[in-house]
Amino acid sequence: MTSEVALIAPISGVIALLVVCYFIYFVLKQSVGTKRMREVSSYIIEGANAFLKRQYSTIIVIAIILAILIYYVLGWHTAISFIFGAALSLLAAYIGMNVAVRANVRSANAARRSARKAFLIAFRGGAVMGLCIVSLSLLGISILYYFFEDPELIVGFGFGASLAALFAQLGGGIYTKAADIGADLVGKVEKKIPEDDPRNPAVIADQVGDNVGDCAGRGADLFESFSDNIICAMILGILFANLGKNAIIFPLVAQAIGLIATIIGVLTIGKFKLSPNKSFNLALAITGFLCALGFYLSTIFLLGNINIFYAALSGLIASLIIGLVAQYYTGLGKKPVRKIAEASQRGSAINIIIGLSYGLESPFIPTLVIAGVIMFSYLICGGGIIGFYGVAAATLGILSTTGIIMASDAFGPIVDNADGIAEMSGIKDKVGTSLEKLDALGNTTKAITKAYAMACAGLSAVVIFLTYLRIVGLLDVTKGVFPVINVVKPEVLIGLLIGGVLPYLFSALAIGATGRTAFQVVDEVRRQFREIRGLLSGKAKPDYGKCVDITTKNALKGMIIPSLLAIVSPILIGFLLGIEALAGLLLGQTLSVLMLAPFFINVGGAWDNAKKYIEIGNLGGKGTKTHAAAVVGDTVGDPLKDVAGPSLHIFTKLVNMTALVFAPLFLSSII
Amino acid sequence: MTSEVALIAPISGVIALLVVCYFIYFVLKQSVGTKRMREVSSYIIEGANAFLKRQYSTIIVIAIILAILIYYVLGWHTAISFIFGAALSLLAAYIGMNVAVRANVRSANAARRSARKAFLIAFRGGAVMGLCIVSLSLLGISILYYFFEDPELIVGFGFGASLAALFAQLGGGIYTKAADIGADLVGKVEKKIPEDDPRNPAVIADQVGDNVGDCAGRGADLFESFSDNIICAMILGILFANLGKNAIIFPLVAQAIGLIATIIGVLTIGKFKLSPNKSFNLALAITGFLCALGFYLSTIFLLGNINIFYAALSGLIASLIIGLVAQYYTGLGKKPVRKIAEASQRGSAINIIIGLSYGLESPFIPTLVIAGVIMFSYLICGGGIIGFYGVAAATLGILSTTGIIMASDAFGPIVDNADGIAEMSGIKDKVGTSLEKLDALGNTTKAITKAYAMACAGLSAVVIFLTYLRIVGLLDVTKGVFPVINVVKPEVLIGLLIGGVLPYLFSALAIGATGRTAFQVVDEVRRQFREIRGLLSGKAKPDYGKCVDITTKNALKGMIIPSLLAIVSPILIGFLLGIEALAGLLLGQTLSVLMLAPFFINVGGAWDNAKKYIEIGNLGGKGTKTHAAAVVGDTVGDPLKDVAGPSLHIFTKLVNMTALVFAPLFLSSII
Repeated sequence: MTSEVALIAPISGVIALLVVCYFIYFVLKQSVGTKRMREVSSYIIEGANAFLKRQYSTIIVIAIILAILIYYVLGWHTAISFIFGAALSLLAAYIGMNVAVRANVRSANAARRSARKAFLIAFRGGAVMGLCIVSLSLLGISILYYFFEDPELIVGFGFGASLAALFAQLGGGIYTKAADIGADLVGKVEKKIPEDDPRNPAVIADQVGDNVGDCAGRGADLFESFSDNIICAMILGILFANLGKNAIIFPLVAQAIGLIATIIGVLTIGKFKLSPNKSFNLALAITGFLCALGFYLSTIFLLGNINIFYAALSGLIASLIIGLVAQYYTGLGKKPVRKIAEASQRGSAINIIIGLSYGLESPFIPTLVIAGVIMFSYLICGGGIIGFYGVAAATLGILSTTGIIMASDAFGPIVDNADGIAEMSGIKDKVGTSLEKLDALGNTTKAITKAYAMACAGLSAVVIFLTYLRIVGLLDVTKGVFPVINVVKPEVLIGLLIGGVLPYLFSALAIGATGRTAFQVVDEVRRQFREIRGLLSGKAKPDYGKCVDITTKNALKGMIIPSLLAIVSPILIGFLLGIEALAGLLLGQTLSVLMLAPFFINVGGAWDNAKKYIEIGNLGGKGTKTHAAAVVGDTVGDPLKDVAGPSLHIFTKLVNMTALVFAPLFLSSII
Repeated sequence: MTSEVALIAPISGVIALLVVCYFIYFVLKQSVGTKRMREVSSYIIEGANAFLKRQYSTIIVIAIILAILIYYVLGWHTAISFIFGAALSLLAAYIGMNVAVRANVRSANAARRSARKAFLIAFRGGAVMGLCIVSLSLLGISILYYFFEDPELIVGFGFGASLAALFAQLGGGIYTKAADIGADLVGKVEKKIPEDDPRNPAVIADQVGDNVGDCAGRGADLFESFSDNIICAMILGILFANLGKNAIIFPLVAQAIGLIATIIGVLTIGKFKLSPNKSFNLALAITGFLCALGFYLSTIFLLGNINIFYAALSGLIASLIIGLVAQYYTGLGKKPVRKIAEASQRGSAINIIIGLSYGLESPFIPTLVIAGVIMFSYLICGGGIIGFYGVAAATLGILSTTGIIMASDAFGPIVDNADGIAEMSGIKDKVGTSLEKLDALGNTTKAITKAYAMACAGLSAVVIFLTYLRIVGLLDVTKGVFPVINVVKPEVLIGLLIGGVLPYLFSALAIGATGRTAFQVVDEVRRQFREIRGLLSGKAKPDYGKCVDITTKNALKGMIIPSLLAIVSPILIGFLLGIEALAGLLLGQTLSVLMLAPFFINVGGAWDNAKKYIEIGNLGGKGTKTHAAAVVGDTVGDPLKDVAGPSLHIFTKLVNMTALVFAPLFLSSII
């Protein structure tokens, strides 16, 4: 290693793992509650692990095939990095989810006596995922860098992480939304039974889905975001060695400081007698402040360049603005949600039309903000080739808060599940509204995470693009030649076109798989209500396993083709049309993802909250025609906001990482 | 003029206008029918002209302001061209629509005796629009070229045409779809009265909408497509003078031959005793063959280069394939439509989810086809800078059939209206299914036109982009330097990002305006049914004027901001960031339009036909829950397929033409 300072990365990683162990111990020592709660919980654990087992088997087979391919064409360094990246990603998601499915029932049980205790259990259960991701990623990259001593050999780690993430997010997303839609459409809409009612045959599949989708899926997503960006920033560090010899390890150090700040922030939760909302905000503020401070100090000491700090700060501010925009378009009291709710009075079609209009409008400001940050961070670092390090720094600025963001995100599905378990176990009256309030907090943190992922995706795309230019030899600081990708060349133009259409095809496949699976769940739930006598009156039990089977089978089937699309397309274009066309493809697909993802995520969020806005008593409330119209919008939004949207962020990174890994092969193309 | 051969353009234009006069005479000499028919017809003519008058006033005010601006900053040549382009576009649409609103009632009347006669009247009524567009465009460009002798001074003509077209299509689109949705949601869905029932207060607004939207709007659209492409190809012709000194006038000659071929094709209709479908296909085949032959001969004689012909042929084949793809995704018996219809059995939400999935999938093959044509036409013409003339030729190849395509498109709204008039006048039983059959043929020709517009948009974007490079001095054949737009430069990247998001914002505004207007129409129609006693039983008359007022006012309001967006954005980026950033913006917005437009158009078409598939008796037929679910999808699709989708094709060209016209001002930018 070029400097002992970098040791802070593995050290902070180990400390975080110790905290993880403590949190796991803390969660497991809590009581599970009644016999019925134990039973419901065991269904969920069983379903979730059965899915993960089958999902992981599929991923492992594909990963091994790819690893062999990589070994033969690119050498053992990249192959090892690849396996390491995929394995650590899956491990982090596995640990995180297994703690989550145990924290949910314990949180529900605790809610019978203390809302604060319920919050603490759920939050620490979620923090296991958050800390696991960041620490395993930092440890993995540090170890590989220690042995390989060249960040370009570690790029396979990011590829492995991205591959695992896309499978995890896509499979989990299809699973959770198909189950959710199926449960709601027949249960809530047709049979008029409450959410999470144990009579609903799809209710267990729905609960399992929350864990394999929102929890394990999102975890793998953030693992790859975090890893890809550190690796790319390190590679760019080689380039910008004139910023100080520590430019390569700077990303590792900055993120390690972020991790320590996150640990401190997470540990404050439960230390003060505050409401969940306030203690969450306090933790976020402490972590944010410490991150910024650490970033400032490491910039000064490692790079001796204050402008890099300003660039990082601009990244942080951008993620904040994008978060506010997302809150405007999806917030419960805001204009778009109110207008969509009002449109529901004129039927579901107008609800959807007005929703689409707001959704399509929503990428506008985030795009301007991302454009602004690119320009600002580029110019403040002096422009020219060196200016690009500023863009990388802006990305690192956003990333330093990954741990706390992820911890608060994983908390969402835990309380959501806890509420469901309380309903199914018949303890809802003892729990009161405490879990519902936590669920509302969970929805807010979920929205923050999605906006955060959006901001990340935009800036990382630029960083990865620059790394690509570096790997194909177009970006060479020592020569001082500004790299050129000439978009007037027909092959680059074609790359741009084909790249641009890929995210549409990907979304089509993801949404289609969810819709078709939901279709089957609807049929199965209708069948059980029709054929099982006494089901609706509560005298007979539904066959939960059937719905779990349908979602498991279809989610696994649905995740393969779209994931392969991300790997095959860049390889094909690279081979056929060369590195410049591939650069065009990278830009084209990034562009479409930057527009489609916020569109999908915001429109879905707005429809969801328009429905909630009516449910809390506006415009007639539940049970009216207006409410029924809003439910249609909410259902349409499900696969958009929870399957296609978040998966697109991984899709774009997997395409990019595939290009990075295989780029050396394309230096001579057919045309 | 460089050659007398070019005289063929104005001559063919004049011949076409003579045919137009004959067709107008033919239509007007037919009988209008009963008193009630005369009455209904007068409502439509009155509403349509009232809207056009107010719409044209708005457009003229904006055009005059722009003309003054252009005069001061760019000189009188461009200002005159601009006014000429806008005026001829509006004139063509005005004549075409005024014949259409007279042909519809005459066609309905003729249908009482002879289906063939009804077809002939409707077709010739539509042909007036088709021939007017092509002939006025050719005449206008020829005259300007005769006086100015430099195609670069005519670029304002295209700008004026594009500006008028965007206003016309957007205003007309909002009008027609808001009225359509309002009439259907309350009339068909809530009150269960038939389509076009005279008791429906929005029925006249709906009929007027067909004319101002589908007819006048589409006419202005094709006028600008046609004009922009000829002008750009002529400008590129200056560049490629080494292909023969006739390269500049070649586009004019090729299109003039296309016009003559179209006249011959159009005149065959009615000459043989064939079914409407067959005689339409025969006319299309004859025109297509003559166009190809003429193109071949003019390539050989004017350019002496057979490869240019092959390039043109590849463009024609591409438009054919894209048409087939559109038919696959929207065809009544095809898999997507069947699957969407089946999904309706599980409720409207699943119908919409499955529809979105197919819609998002649909741009994939067209994009590959366009990419393929670009590569093929570029390489067959030798690559390098000269290769770009091949891409221009491919675009000209598609364009040569504009006249016949437009004639068959304008035929659609005429028979649609004729059927509505028959229903409203109570002669439906005498007319039978003959008009419905013609309406089905009209839907097919409409689908062909949209696919054709898609193919055009993709290739013209490249041609206009090259013209832009030429105007800003980056494309210079004599120097032999290949032009460079370097996408690695942050300002180009930012241009790409901002360009990419514009079509989303534009679509959001267009869809939102339609939704909000429909919202008001729904309220008004509900009010009339509630407050006017005896309306539903047919004893009292509705107040048609109110709905016409609402749609007129809102359509005019809704068309302004989105249109200005297309003009302001390129000027702003050009001034602030310079010509390379503007090039980035042009590419970015083209890319998004090429994906969004087919998505919107195909998903809307598929939902529409999924509903029709159920209505013709499948899956339970009309009146079932399945049908109601499919109606929701159809309604959601309306603003997508008939407002946002077609307007996007004009939006992209208006952005491009604005850049072309104002480019000379941006040669020195702020950054």
